Amino acid sequence: MAKNRQILLKSRPEGWPTADNFELVEAPMPEPSDGEVLTRTLFLSLDPYMRGRMSAAKSYADPVPVGGVMGGGTVGEVVASRDANFKKGDIVLGFGGWRDYAALPGRSLRKLDPSLAPVSTALGVLGMPGLTAYVGLIDIGQPKAGETVVVSAASGAVGSVVGQLAKLRGCRAVGIAGGAGKCRFVVDELGFDACIDHRASDFPAQLKAACAGGIDVDFENVGGEVLQAVWPRLNDFARIVVCGLVAQYNDTTPRPGPNLQVLLTRRLTMRGFIVSDHLARGAAFQAEIGPLVRSGKIKYKEHVVEGLERAPEALIGLLQGKNFGKVVVRVA
Amino acid sequence: MAKNRQILLKSRPEGWPTADNFELVEAPMPEPSDGEVLTRTLFLSLDPYMRGRMSAAKSYADPVPVGGVMGGGTVGEVVASRDANFKKGDIVLGFGGWRDYAALPGRSLRKLDPSLAPVSTALGVLGMPGLTAYVGLIDIGQPKAGETVVVSAASGAVGSVVGQLAKLRGCRAVGIAGGAGKCRFVVDELGFDACIDHRASDFPAQLKAACAGGIDVDFENVGGEVLQAVWPRLNDFARIVVCGLVAQYNDTTPRPGPNLQVLLTRRLTMRGFIVSDHLARGAAFQAEIGPLVRSGKIKYKEHVVEGLERAPEALIGLLQGKNFGKVVVRVA
Repeated sequence: MAKNRQILLKSRPEGWPTADNFELVEAPMPEPSDGEVLTRTLFLSLDPYMRGRMSAAKSYADPVPVGGVMGGGTVGEVVASRDANFKKGDIVLGFGGWRDYAALPGRSLRKLDPSLAPVSTALGVLGMPGLTAYVGLIDIGQPKAGETVVVSAASGAVGSVVGQLAKLRGCRAVGIAGGAGKCRFVVDELGFDACIDHRASDFPAQLKAACAGGIDVDFENVGGEVLQAVWPRLNDFARIVVCGLVAQYNDTTPRPGPNLQVLLTRRLTMRGFIVSDHLARGAAFQAEIGPLVRSGKIKYKEHVVEGLERAPEALIGLLQGKNFGKVVVRVA
Repeated sequence: MAKNRQILLKSRPEGWPTADNFELVEAPMPEPSDGEVLTRTLFLSLDPYMRGRMSAAKSYADPVPVGGVMGGGTVGEVVASRDANFKKGDIVLGFGGWRDYAALPGRSLRKLDPSLAPVSTALGVLGMPGLTAYVGLIDIGQPKAGETVVVSAASGAVGSVVGQLAKLRGCRAVGIAGGAGKCRFVVDELGFDACIDHRASDFPAQLKAACAGGIDVDFENVGGEVLQAVWPRLNDFARIVVCGLVAQYNDTTPRPGPNLQVLLTRRLTMRGFIVSDHLARGAAFQAEIGPLVRSGKIKYKEHVVEGLERAPEALIGLLQGKNFGKVVVRVA
């Protein structure tokens, strides 16, 4: 019988996670109950939010218990089904976690059509990160044609869609990314108007120059010093869409935010959001973005990590910005 | 001929303003041009925003120039008119500034009916502060019946209306004020459910106890340590209406804000606003609040300062929380 490797949260990190916080074990093959489907994981999604699940701190979702399997979105192949809606060989999107095989309730799965797009895109541009970009930019950021939209982590799974959507809405799109290679990709491949390397010593000055008319929408994935550079450039009535704060996920003490005097005098709106509150927008998202991805009008980049056993180092790398594009682990 | 005393901004304050930043001078009586009205100031409004106008820092309105007359809302009596819409003896609301007499464009004035309410209320509960409370709570805070609304500076011109409006909308209203006397007034006279003294050593614990179900709307007039105590108590999807930050108006270095991790995980919306962007809501405000004030259902408290020459010390006192109710200066 096939092995069922799985990666557990061995201990909670203090600050930055390390390989020691994870443990790879072999577990018995799960048996699907009535209504469940046994899936073999093909791709596992790695995302910044997973750092939050490793902590015990109160958040919008329960933490992974110590000793529990790390959670995560997966694309899997059905190997056995006790739900009439699924049959062996179906490719499904679900929340299988960091493991080779998972028995999942059929009602939690969505069948994928491999003829429409590579199935891994259901974890990225056509999945949760894409919907995050869509809801955050369109519904919360409310960009108007001619406005300037800035997005941090611009080459990542969410940021890359935000900037391309902003362009499609007639906005000026300015990315922020870590390193010259990512910045080139964001401008040359994704079509942003500009992209600034936040590692440059004169990053704030470069950002100011790239946003001569100020910033109307800040789609914030990073926080920390990146947001500090954006803050003084925000125009009256600008919207700050707080999607992620990866710069501070490994803080051990609460980090102060920006000076609210600016928020008051410029009448800014700053709003935090979590995509799971907005799943009702999934249909509109798929209807608009699906065809654009299939026609190549919206581009995406995947960073494929080979092998489940490499997921811990890949997540740590993601939190450090070492990835280039949407991180997926090819499990099988 | 009558004297026309006026108070100038003599110098810009560094940190807290002092009496030395102001200068009382006598000026010639103004001559109204065509379309203008000469008014004798009866009441001058003092408001926290005036601290901003004393600084050169970029803001939503131009600063008062050094040597210029301090600006401010006034209720005045028409003593001469070159606008057919006004005649001698009319009582008008305008922006006359810190002086005995002002020649003002007729189109900038609103005629008041002294039979409806004491004319000074046009500077407070039925004027800019009342509209600020209305727009901030109703349009931006969007309170729903059963929710908990917290308002700082609760006995002040804006805060007192916010809490009473919240009660009328079926909310629980919790005030924050400086001192036991103000807190008693807020509960006993204004009808808030509770009011916490921010000067108490256990203020955060008292606030927590008064908001056992958390906070859904924070109407923020103060910022600083008051907001720090509110921040951890905010519920998922809470709204922070940033109306004023009087705790930091005299800062000489930018003050950091609260940790945005909470804004993200609890999906908070924080929005700064300035009432002058919302004057179109004036008619709805007057229609709803006017009758409630006249019937005594909405109460208000004025802190009347006698004499224009006392305006500087009264503004300094206002910034220190020494006032009790809406501050107006009786000029004549």
